[in-house]
Amino acid sequence: MLESAEILGLIAAACTTSSFVPQVYKTWKTRNVAGISLIMYFVLFIGVVLWLLYGIVINSLSVILANSITGLLVLIILILRIRYGLQHRK
Amino acid sequence: MLESAEILGLIAAACTTSSFVPQVYKTWKTRNVAGISLIMYFVLFIGVVLWLLYGIVINSLSVILANSITGLLVLIILILRIRYGLQHRK
Repeated sequence: MLESAEILGLIAAACTTSSFVPQVYKTWKTRNVAGISLIMYFVLFIGVVLWLLYGIVINSLSVILANSITGLLVLIILILRIRYGLQHRK
Repeated sequence: MLESAEILGLIAAACTTSSFVPQVYKTWKTRNVAGISLIMYFVLFIGVVLWLLYGIVINSLSVILANSITGLLVLIILILRIRYGLQHRK
């Protein structure tokens, strides 16, 4: 059985990870990326990959799970930001 | 001395936390929040607060440090998003 600390971690992970889903949806739908910082998503992606490595090293299920999915979602937003950002400039 | 795992965690924390600074700056300067998901920053803020509690429970310096500062930055973006979002509608 999971410890209560790990349950708290998993709920936290579920929140921070799922939070990026509405941003993916919104950006996908509206293609409006003018207000979104490219540098934020670039640095965030590097950070999330490092958190994933940290999770593997300390063997924390919450950290590994959260950062695998978050990394994917942040990467999607980063790609959409670059793609629609370039279209916007044309 | 810190273990190498904790050093990795602190570098990861520095990246994910500092990533929100350019978004705060951009939103503060441009007041353009049309592309930013309100739901994302609302759920993210709740998640970061839960991560902070998790960090306190498991006594992880990286998790506590990262999420205190991230929580503050995400709260600023959330407030700007609500404030400029309302102005945009007028």
